[in-house]
Amino acid sequence: MNAIPKTEFLLLAEKNGRLDITFNRPEQRNAINNAMAAEFAAVVEWLENTPDIRLVVLRGAGGHFCAGGDIKERKNQATTDAGDGGDPLAERNANAGLMFRRFEYLPQTTIAVVEGSAFGGGMGYACLADITILSTSARMGMPETTLGVAPAQIAPYVVKRIGLTRARQLALTAERFDGKAAYEYGIGQYLAEPEELEAITEEVAARVLKCGPAANAATKDIMLQVGKRPDEDMIRYSAEKFAALNRSPEGIEGQTAFAEKRKPSWQVEQ
Amino acid sequence: MNAIPKTEFLLLAEKNGRLDITFNRPEQRNAINNAMAAEFAAVVEWLENTPDIRLVVLRGAGGHFCAGGDIKERKNQATTDAGDGGDPLAERNANAGLMFRRFEYLPQTTIAVVEGSAFGGGMGYACLADITILSTSARMGMPETTLGVAPAQIAPYVVKRIGLTRARQLALTAERFDGKAAYEYGIGQYLAEPEELEAITEEVAARVLKCGPAANAATKDIMLQVGKRPDEDMIRYSAEKFAALNRSPEGIEGQTAFAEKRKPSWQVEQ
Amino acid sequence: MNAIPKTEFLLLAEKNGRLDITFNRPEQRNAINNAMAAEFAAVVEWLENTPDIRLVVLRGAGGHFCAGGDIKERKNQATTDAGDGGDPLAERNANAGLMFRRFEYLPQTTIAVVEGSAFGGGMGYACLADITILSTSARMGMPETTLGVAPAQIAPYVVKRIGLTRARQLALTAERFDGKAAYEYGIGQYLAEPEELEAITEEVAARVLKCGPAANAATKDIMLQVGKRPDEDMIRYSAEKFAALNRSPEGIEGQTAFAEKRKPSWQVEQ
Repeated sequence: MNAIPKTEFLLLAEKNGRLDITFNRPEQRNAINNAMAAEFAAVVEWLENTPDIRLVVLRGAGGHFCAGGDIKERKNQATTDAGDGGDPLAERNANAGLMFRRFEYLPQTTIAVVEGSAFGGGMGYACLADITILSTSARMGMPETTLGVAPAQIAPYVVKRIGLTRARQLALTAERFDGKAAYEYGIGQYLAEPEELEAITEEVAARVLKCGPAANAATKDIMLQVGKRPDEDMIRYSAEKFAALNRSPEGIEGQTAFAEKRKPSWQVEQ
Repeated sequence: MNAIPKTEFLLLAEKNGRLDITFNRPEQRNAINNAMAAEFAAVVEWLENTPDIRLVVLRGAGGHFCAGGDIKERKNQATTDAGDGGDPLAERNANAGLMFRRFEYLPQTTIAVVEGSAFGGGMGYACLADITILSTSARMGMPETTLGVAPAQIAPYVVKRIGLTRARQLALTAERFDGKAAYEYGIGQYLAEPEELEAITEEVAARVLKCGPAANAATKDIMLQVGKRPDEDMIRYSAEKFAALNRSPEGIEGQTAFAEKRKPSWQVEQ
Repeated sequence: MNAIPKTEFLLLAEKNGRLDITFNRPEQRNAINNAMAAEFAAVVEWLENTPDIRLVVLRGAGGHFCAGGDIKERKNQATTDAGDGGDPLAERNANAGLMFRRFEYLPQTTIAVVEGSAFGGGMGYACLADITILSTSARMGMPETTLGVAPAQIAPYVVKRIGLTRARQLALTAERFDGKAAYEYGIGQYLAEPEELEAITEEVAARVLKCGPAANAATKDIMLQVGKRPDEDMIRYSAEKFAALNRSPEGIEGQTAFAEKRKPSWQVEQ
């Protein structure tokens, strides 16, 4: 395993194939500044190259998930010139979009644990994780339009998460909503009272770790391809993944363990 | 601002950047005849060219939204010859489809207020607006299949609104359902008792008008592109929209007002 | 009408334009072995060529819908060599995928009646039918990942049915859930207590049979095209279907019957 990146604005804890990432600027409700974004990019790159990690749990420090982008930093950038070689504001925004996309396609199963503020980019990450656990304490929304700008890079993930209609309504009214509403809209798949949040997170994490790591990575990859390939191409692509899994050590171990009524080797104690 | 079209079967009321459109054939539960369709097309074209209008509120006169197409007119057309230059029935239906699509892509934020009958094309408009407010008095459905025809041009909007499965079930059983069910299916984002309908409509309209007009138009446009462009193209497209908004007078005013803890200029009193 | 295929592992009952198909290996909870899959393929091919059948009702014998693929058969195949001409395991999986797709596109309206076990491929068929009626007794899930393999061929149908997020969560945790949860996730459109299941099935079937057969086939076809064609192409395609239906004997009969306030000819007594 490569050395894990050093970070200042992210807390990282790695153990038994699981990485916990904590947004850590609690005095700014974990708003993402340029430095934190760069650290996040380094961690995503590390994850892309570290298949020994099977599970990522993303949360925020101090009772908040993430308040979105750092508005002060962005405002300063908007008043600087665009320069010759492309608009740095567009570049920065596109880089955020590319980062979202890389996080979506990570081979690891990702869980977001959302409590307190989750606005703008924070709402984006809540819509990006494979599994989102919502606290009833969550306060979410896309306030961008009230500032005269757009929730541009998170839009695809909000639309894919809750549908074009609910996404438009929330963005075009800038309405704030709580964790219970977010659960009803489909942003999360589990809803917890604040005092249950830790226990439910551990329960869901344990379920993920019962699944084969390569099996989960392949399943996630197949599901993310749905609608992007013609039907027959999709069938062929999935069949090849399926056959390869069946013939892999993991697939053979999983099916042998099932026949022998024992746990497969990857179901280690956490 | 260009002169607003003159209409007979639509009531139009324009004030402070908001246009109210009312289907107005109450004795036919606002069924859309050819004349009303032509008037609607003229209004849509006017809206496409009138960015000063930010918000469109669509409803029906006399306690009903819209009973769909005028069946008598259509039946007469079905029994006339197809003629040489293409089937006029297919032409008329395709024109309805093109009108739906133009309405969907309007730069304005659109709200449909649905009470009483909303069948066929009426259900189409309920599924087309950015935001739909449902009265519990609503009675909806796609009865076309019981007449041996298909809800052809509204199908894409019903599918995008409530998913392929619920759309198929409703169309293939011709089941009627009320406003509460429509809310649960996802056709609307607000559900109101008839006596609350007006107040909730005004509340939602006020929220939309707090958002920047260009910001809302760009956000709607971005969301409507999701799934239509390759991921990287989408990221680039959205980043350019985002940078342009940030550098526009609206974006600068919005972010400056936020920093100065005052309301931005577009939040005029209604 | 061509002769209906002879089958051993499927019970077939055809009457008045309706075909009931029952998975019939109750001692294996109707797990799909190679022989049953071949029989199912023959029935699907027969349905594709038998427009006199308007409605298909799919269920399982002995209180269970379908436990998925036959694991013992598959495990034996995984330990045989791949051979020269392509991996037979990939071929078999791709064939399952092609069969799912053909079932999805059947011109008949399809109803799945899901009680008891519905795992893996059984969950696939629950997500494939146009209309799914769930018993509260249903027990569903995608346990594949706990065996180190993937729910590869059912993935597109699960994603289209319940969205990318709920599909990922269920597959990546291998969570089991009951009929009520399945209804909330959107797998089914009706939820019944076991003792109501038969009555609700007959009620839904009767509603489908009130709709014109060609109208339903065209509506289903149009809805399945949504998102697969560019917008303008979709509008043209749907308009041609619409005009053809209007000019067909079924469309003329349906609209004439409506004008004459009588039942159309296809609403035969069942």
